[in-house]
Amino acid sequence: MITLTTDFGTRDSYVAEMKGMILQINPQATIVDISHHIDSQSVIHGAFVLGSTYHYFPRDTIHVAVVDPGVGTSRRAVLMVTPKGSFLAPDNGVLTYVLRGSPGYLTTSQDQPFLEPMEVAIPSGYSAYQLSNHALWKSPISDTFHGRDVFAPVAAHLSLGVAPEEVGEPLHSLVCLCIPNPRWQNNTLTGHIIHVDGFGNLITTIEGQTLAQNRVDVLLGGHRIQGVSRSYVEGADLLAIIGSHGNLEIAVRDGSAARELSANVGEEVVVELLPLG
Amino acid sequence: MITLTTDFGTRDSYVAEMKGMILQINPQATIVDISHHIDSQSVIHGAFVLGSTYHYFPRDTIHVAVVDPGVGTSRRAVLMVTPKGSFLAPDNGVLTYVLRGSPGYLTTSQDQPFLEPMEVAIPSGYSAYQLSNHALWKSPISDTFHGRDVFAPVAAHLSLGVAPEEVGEPLHSLVCLCIPNPRWQNNTLTGHIIHVDGFGNLITTIEGQTLAQNRVDVLLGGHRIQGVSRSYVEGADLLAIIGSHGNLEIAVRDGSAARELSANVGEEVVVELLPLG
Amino acid sequence: MITLTTDFGTRDSYVAEMKGMILQINPQATIVDISHHIDSQSVIHGAFVLGSTYHYFPRDTIHVAVVDPGVGTSRRAVLMVTPKGSFLAPDNGVLTYVLRGSPGYLTTSQDQPFLEPMEVAIPSGYSAYQLSNHALWKSPISDTFHGRDVFAPVAAHLSLGVAPEEVGEPLHSLVCLCIPNPRWQNNTLTGHIIHVDGFGNLITTIEGQTLAQNRVDVLLGGHRIQGVSRSYVEGADLLAIIGSHGNLEIAVRDGSAARELSANVGEEVVVELLPLG
Repeated sequence: MITLTTDFGTRDSYVAEMKGMILQINPQATIVDISHHIDSQSVIHGAFVLGSTYHYFPRDTIHVAVVDPGVGTSRRAVLMVTPKGSFLAPDNGVLTYVLRGSPGYLTTSQDQPFLEPMEVAIPSGYSAYQLSNHALWKSPISDTFHGRDVFAPVAAHLSLGVAPEEVGEPLHSLVCLCIPNPRWQNNTLTGHIIHVDGFGNLITTIEGQTLAQNRVDVLLGGHRIQGVSRSYVEGADLLAIIGSHGNLEIAVRDGSAARELSANVGEEVVVELLPLG
Repeated sequence: MITLTTDFGTRDSYVAEMKGMILQINPQATIVDISHHIDSQSVIHGAFVLGSTYHYFPRDTIHVAVVDPGVGTSRRAVLMVTPKGSFLAPDNGVLTYVLRGSPGYLTTSQDQPFLEPMEVAIPSGYSAYQLSNHALWKSPISDTFHGRDVFAPVAAHLSLGVAPEEVGEPLHSLVCLCIPNPRWQNNTLTGHIIHVDGFGNLITTIEGQTLAQNRVDVLLGGHRIQGVSRSYVEGADLLAIIGSHGNLEIAVRDGSAARELSANVGEEVVVELLPLG
Repeated sequence: MITLTTDFGTRDSYVAEMKGMILQINPQATIVDISHHIDSQSVIHGAFVLGSTYHYFPRDTIHVAVVDPGVGTSRRAVLMVTPKGSFLAPDNGVLTYVLRGSPGYLTTSQDQPFLEPMEVAIPSGYSAYQLSNHALWKSPISDTFHGRDVFAPVAAHLSLGVAPEEVGEPLHSLVCLCIPNPRWQNNTLTGHIIHVDGFGNLITTIEGQTLAQNRVDVLLGGHRIQGVSRSYVEGADLLAIIGSHGNLEIAVRDGSAARELSANVGEEVVVELLPLG
């Protein structure tokens, strides 16, 4: 099984060219679209969507993620093999959440700027390779579309049983975007908006389980939200909820929190723990 | 075969999370997208699209429809089994057209408001169940995404041969939205716009066969359209046509009737039968 | 394998009705979406997307292209069989690039207007048929949706082994849109914008190999671009590049050339060859 995550949209031939390349090599391949509407060139958007999805798929799935503003430059094209799936992508941070999902992933230093790219070591039990075996690629390859010319054919060959070692040389580190862990200060927890979904819900880096059963207020851009709702139709217009990713979300009942609050990825969200009783 | 109809859009991970859940349980499942661009939380939009589609699919298809503004509240999640397919959905009216498609479906009383939810009995030959068997669900389930946590895994289990009776307790009624039948008054027939399609065509509740071979005028929002065209490029700019659903549609040649007439779902459309000769 | 290219969008039931029709006839069919977001009724958009895609698919693929403003009029519905795939479409020019891809395709006369429809002979080694065998269609058929009622069922029957000759009478010519070859005048080459992609990149009719290793300037709408870049992040804001179709493209770094230049399909693009040294 091969999944595709891209920012190519669906009004052009790009996605179908990738599918054709895959099916020409392996006509039996099952291809599943994750999304082709990643915001144009937004590596963090692609990373979040892929990271929210891959663990629901069978472990032998090959995930191809092509959000690739640097195509044609010297950025590396990579394969990462993990116990939860294999991943083909440009080495630009689009695998950030897959790396963070590894058991040994370390807390990010608080000192690096939000979403700054950094090199991290390949987690124990994972392996990574730089794609360099041209025999597995389309020939000739274009300067601008490695999704079709490199990633799609390599995915198809892997789905036919080509060994990961055949795609190229082993790598010891990959690019990861810095997503600081939420930080405690007395009774407040400060995190970031990491994703704005299609409903305009603001998904934060604050995990729901961190809040446990505490009574909380949530602060964002001058607004204070009292308590956490259990459904999108409960409570006041502006509400906080533990969303399906398990993270704290800010939503507007029957509306878009992103639009009403003019909020975007990177903005800080503060949770205040209230005294009991 | 499993179909999906949702209002999740395609820029997020939601649809792919559902597909992953299905494929994790049944890697051989064939999944077909009906639409993921149902207007956000528009139950009637979802009901119309599903109702226009299901009878073209094989009878053993499992249709999953998740337009679910009430997720996390006490609204029921249901399975309905019919001779033309099985349906998994929240019990909020999204199965309205499937219920209306049953042979014994009764004329709706004219007294209820357009699109008001009402309880209707399960048609003869159909059966329905409230989803309650947690053993078939993801564990734990979220408060906000039963598409992934309840409907997708139940669909996958059904596709593997789990019997409908195993999903939960039998139900005797389901929610249906009130769609009044067009009403005759002398030589005029009054119906409603029930759907606005992506071209801006206004699809009405008036069935084409009702008009038979009569000469007619069609009235909508102060406009009078003379006669029924046979193609979207025939006749004047504003035209009436029997569309592919078999219903009377209002369209604008090379344009959007919805935009030009500022018309929307629920608006009345009147057909005047003209004297012969 | 059956591919679908339409302008139906994905918020309605139209695409799924086609898929249901196919799967009802051949439940084993593999269906691949090329695009359902062709600009409404834009035959050239559909022709370009299909033409950019089909040669990546296996040769026994059946490509269905429904951009069909003339549905319900006397326009023909056709099947074209080629060594690189079979094509079902209205005979309105949507197969233009498939016809141009044939080995014997002749240079278009410079005298015909850009995108004017013209009749061209079926290339040697190809065959074409007018769909007329109602036994392979839905019954009854609608006036407005031959995608579902004619093209989808014929595609499904072909995928089950029905011979091309059974769909209808042989044809000797098909409609092709006039796309003039770029013309040389001294050291300048003048072509057209033929497609605007979802990133706003302007794809021209000028093939990259025509420019060989020459130093060039590219002129469009009062702007002069010096040289050809090798990536979308190289060079100045406004840049020229040989895109993945192998053609000269005009792009804006991190932006939309279509929007910034207010440029559209049909506009002329001029390449000046510069003296060496």
